[in-house]
Amino acid sequence: MPSLNPALAEVRRAVRASLSALPAGSTVIVALSGGPDSLALAAATAFEAPKLGLRAASVTVDHGLQPGSDEAALAAARTAAELGLDPLVVSVEVGTAGGPEAAAREARYGVLRDAARDANAAAVLLGHTLDDQAETVLLGLARGAGATSLAGMAPDRTDDDSGVRWLRPLLAVRREMTVAACAAAGLDPWLDPHNRDDRFRRVRVRERVLPLLESELGPGVAEALARTAEQLREDAQAFDDMIAETIEDIVEPAEAGIAISVAALAANPPALRHRIIRHVVQSEFHESLSRSQTLEVARLVTDYSGQGPIDLPGCRARRVGRLVEFSAGGSGA
Amino acid sequence: MPSLNPALAEVRRAVRASLSALPAGSTVIVALSGGPDSLALAAATAFEAPKLGLRAASVTVDHGLQPGSDEAALAAARTAAELGLDPLVVSVEVGTAGGPEAAAREARYGVLRDAARDANAAAVLLGHTLDDQAETVLLGLARGAGATSLAGMAPDRTDDDSGVRWLRPLLAVRREMTVAACAAAGLDPWLDPHNRDDRFRRVRVRERVLPLLESELGPGVAEALARTAEQLREDAQAFDDMIAETIEDIVEPAEAGIAISVAALAANPPALRHRIIRHVVQSEFHESLSRSQTLEVARLVTDYSGQGPIDLPGCRARRVGRLVEFSAGGSGA
Repeated sequence: MPSLNPALAEVRRAVRASLSALPAGSTVIVALSGGPDSLALAAATAFEAPKLGLRAASVTVDHGLQPGSDEAALAAARTAAELGLDPLVVSVEVGTAGGPEAAAREARYGVLRDAARDANAAAVLLGHTLDDQAETVLLGLARGAGATSLAGMAPDRTDDDSGVRWLRPLLAVRREMTVAACAAAGLDPWLDPHNRDDRFRRVRVRERVLPLLESELGPGVAEALARTAEQLREDAQAFDDMIAETIEDIVEPAEAGIAISVAALAANPPALRHRIIRHVVQSEFHESLSRSQTLEVARLVTDYSGQGPIDLPGCRARRVGRLVEFSAGGSGA
Repeated sequence: MPSLNPALAEVRRAVRASLSALPAGSTVIVALSGGPDSLALAAATAFEAPKLGLRAASVTVDHGLQPGSDEAALAAARTAAELGLDPLVVSVEVGTAGGPEAAAREARYGVLRDAARDANAAAVLLGHTLDDQAETVLLGLARGAGATSLAGMAPDRTDDDSGVRWLRPLLAVRREMTVAACAAAGLDPWLDPHNRDDRFRRVRVRERVLPLLESELGPGVAEALARTAEQLREDAQAFDDMIAETIEDIVEPAEAGIAISVAALAANPPALRHRIIRHVVQSEFHESLSRSQTLEVARLVTDYSGQGPIDLPGCRARRVGRLVEFSAGGSGA
């Protein structure tokens, strides 16, 4: 009996494990760029979904950012149809806010979200691999924002607002496996020139930083980074849950803002104290505090000698008796 | 009025902040290799300690690993004496256990610990800089053991067993500042050839990995890594404290081992559940579980269908009713 190509087998196994959480009869949408990762994902989904009683569609977004992108999108859709998926191509206008990468991502996720709602899909499948995860951790490391920036991408996450569920079945699969799986299946992936353009930090991480880390620190660095992300995501989730459980009891409305109990902040370990401060400013004023700003606010609790008020993004903080008060805007607010 | 060299000022300020936590009248010991970091630390300590009513000594360890190391150690001690420190040189025999770096470190810390106890020192000062911290985080990242391996070195830590307190006053100071401070003070540091020997992973991280990260991801990467370490150390501490508070209530003795309550493991979030499992195996059997071993034990709680026992380093784990039992050794234990 001929044996199945190992790369194909690994990709299919990963997809099967991820899809098995979904109810039979529902629809999944593969986000299909046509690159090796999403193409291998589409092929494995086309193979596994029917066995689990799922219907599978694909959505390809034409960002219109380079000549021939429309043809590449149509070719991906044709391949999807040949694989047995129900294909859709959507053209978008990419803005410029936040830089080209961020703008393209925002446009793409908007299309996927709309498609998921239109089709009442149980999940959107994204083709991110272990290599993508490792790159994300390294990019987060360079930001230095602790566990939050190192936690990488989640294998299974549901949007709070849209309710769309995002699955990443290939997050533990190496990129070379998706390339090999496409070759074994006779599929010809589209190689996006943006993925080689070293103006992008992510491309430089992929092509220069990770290979150097592998050669200087030994093989297995990408896997180690992905494992780190998984553990730090657990940690971040535990802290988020602790905050969700207690936040109502320790904050109260204040004039033009919100206040946190000094006693509650003092009773918590620094890891939670600092997260509570950041959480309150984020949810009330939609601003992220830096590490040094957070520490300065914490000193209103741990090392108070009459200092303040402290000017922060979107608000200012000061100690008022048994409370740390955050109020909107500058001096006159 | 002539102004103080900025590098000298920064190193002195860092040392002053660190020493100010110590009681007047006590003794501090500078761990002095004679390299730029520890030499700048020694000079700043000689300057600041008397103003805080502290006595300051230095200990230089001659590892005897290269020709001339005895002369380098004596030269460092002479410089320490000229600076006004009370110098001590100790020669050690370095073993081979765990590789050359680990053996030298073990010998060195043994000497410092003995010296601290002999002098009844309030603290031993170590010259690690922000660059050392960044290198430690990158080395930990390659291991992939989550927050624990990324938390780096603590600025202030007391040994559980020996009671020796270790301070790292320069942990927020860049290495180039210690070099500049030595130059400004007319001090001539010893350049250990081991620090350039690229057989050592740490040297490769210093000379190749960090410079590439800085050039590809932008400056500030070392600071970002150090900031990450600080936040992850906070996180690890918070989890340690939570475990210390609850562990007594959720474990009980078992035949040839120890058992954890299934209900308690199930009630905790994964971040704590996994740490409790690792903690119990570490403290009872002195073995570290890998991520995949930890997850396999956790499935005795979260996904139990009669599987097990699970063979682990130093013990095996199995589910017995409302408990997960860990018992010593292999099959017959």
